[in-house]
Amino acid sequence: MPRFFISPSDINGDIVSIEGKNAEHMNVLRMKIGEGFIASCSDGIDIYCKLTDLQKKSAFGEIMDKLPCLSEASIDATIFAGMPKGDKADNIVQKCTETGARRIVFYQSERSVSRPDEKSAEKKRIRWQRIAEEAAMQSGRGIIPEVIVLGSFLDMLHEAEKSDLSLLMYETGERVSLRDAIEGKRFESVSIITGPEGGFDESEVEKAKEKGFSICAMGPRILRCETAPVCALTAIMYATSNL
Amino acid sequence: MPRFFISPSDINGDIVSIEGKNAEHMNVLRMKIGEGFIASCSDGIDIYCKLTDLQKKSAFGEIMDKLPCLSEASIDATIFAGMPKGDKADNIVQKCTETGARRIVFYQSERSVSRPDEKSAEKKRIRWQRIAEEAAMQSGRGIIPEVIVLGSFLDMLHEAEKSDLSLLMYETGERVSLRDAIEGKRFESVSIITGPEGGFDESEVEKAKEKGFSICAMGPRILRCETAPVCALTAIMYATSNL
Repeated sequence: MPRFFISPSDINGDIVSIEGKNAEHMNVLRMKIGEGFIASCSDGIDIYCKLTDLQKKSAFGEIMDKLPCLSEASIDATIFAGMPKGDKADNIVQKCTETGARRIVFYQSERSVSRPDEKSAEKKRIRWQRIAEEAAMQSGRGIIPEVIVLGSFLDMLHEAEKSDLSLLMYETGERVSLRDAIEGKRFESVSIITGPEGGFDESEVEKAKEKGFSICAMGPRILRCETAPVCALTAIMYATSNL
Repeated sequence: MPRFFISPSDINGDIVSIEGKNAEHMNVLRMKIGEGFIASCSDGIDIYCKLTDLQKKSAFGEIMDKLPCLSEASIDATIFAGMPKGDKADNIVQKCTETGARRIVFYQSERSVSRPDEKSAEKKRIRWQRIAEEAAMQSGRGIIPEVIVLGSFLDMLHEAEKSDLSLLMYETGERVSLRDAIEGKRFESVSIITGPEGGFDESEVEKAKEKGFSICAMGPRILRCETAPVCALTAIMYATSNL
């Protein structure tokens, strides 16, 4: 059933109003009056609706039922990815949304190649947030993952330590396997930290270690900066029976 | 240490000859005489060499040691992906090479959107094989995964059943979780089957079931056709302690 994210103000009693590109998308799907769709305020509740009116840029639906969305993972996972160059971030946002991340954070670090100024970073963030929304619609998520941009590695560590378990993926030095870092542990939230193209500076890894983060290996192969977040998240989803 | 795939005929006694784009790549890396590199005939053996001569389009190295490559996974995994449109296949080849697949097979099925003729399919295969080689170099693989193109779903099933365990990822109907399909099983080789953009035809899933393949779910979210192979492979690598 097609899924559309709306704002709480789009709901008026039993009537849901669908605006702009969502209504255009309904037209692309050639939806018929009486057809069902799911509206969601990105709060994990699926609002089952029946289409009652469809114009070019607006539509209305009648609410039939409200049920908790069953496609959200039981684990609250946040991806912290070093801000990459080019369209790699688009890829990270799209794939990590499909794989079930709740939040996707890009941060600047010592060896970051991409260093957008504040204005350009905000422009990028808005673009990534839209990619997250599209991927959430297509993959059937009950929430749109929030996309956040942080200016420094230390700001990132500060956010990452809020989870029950914080894992930093490192491609060299003393590490535990991702499996050993997860298995047998009980956690409801997890921070997964991956580096930019240039990898981490040793001093950064030391700082994460001091905070008690697990420094993890993802096997003996070296993963690209846009592959590592998706693989680590998938492993977490598997380990927590979400796959 | 930089890694180059060579052919067995490039070895003459203790001397390794590096040709063409590999030699050009050495120049890009600004390698110096005496510097170490790894040569590999894509057979899982790492040949440790010392650079003795570097020209624009050729180079020579002296063999110092030969050791089994430690970065190959213990599990022999083949990805069977429905042939997708556009550059999605490039993405599948690159990411599944990094994640440790031994073979990547694209096949035509009932709902395939992309239907290249034989000549164009072979052209694509050569391109994908080159992408696999580059990804194998960069991620430190001991072999280059072989890229194969098959013309039909039945040909694919015939190949896929050669593994100890064969799993077909399906987004609807009666399925077991990927975790339940793997956990507690002993297998040295695995076939992972994912569909094209349009998904599988029900009759295709029935045929796989008849052959005893496990029909698996990868969580309640719907993954894109280029995301599913990487996620399934990562889960297998995690489950078999290769992550």
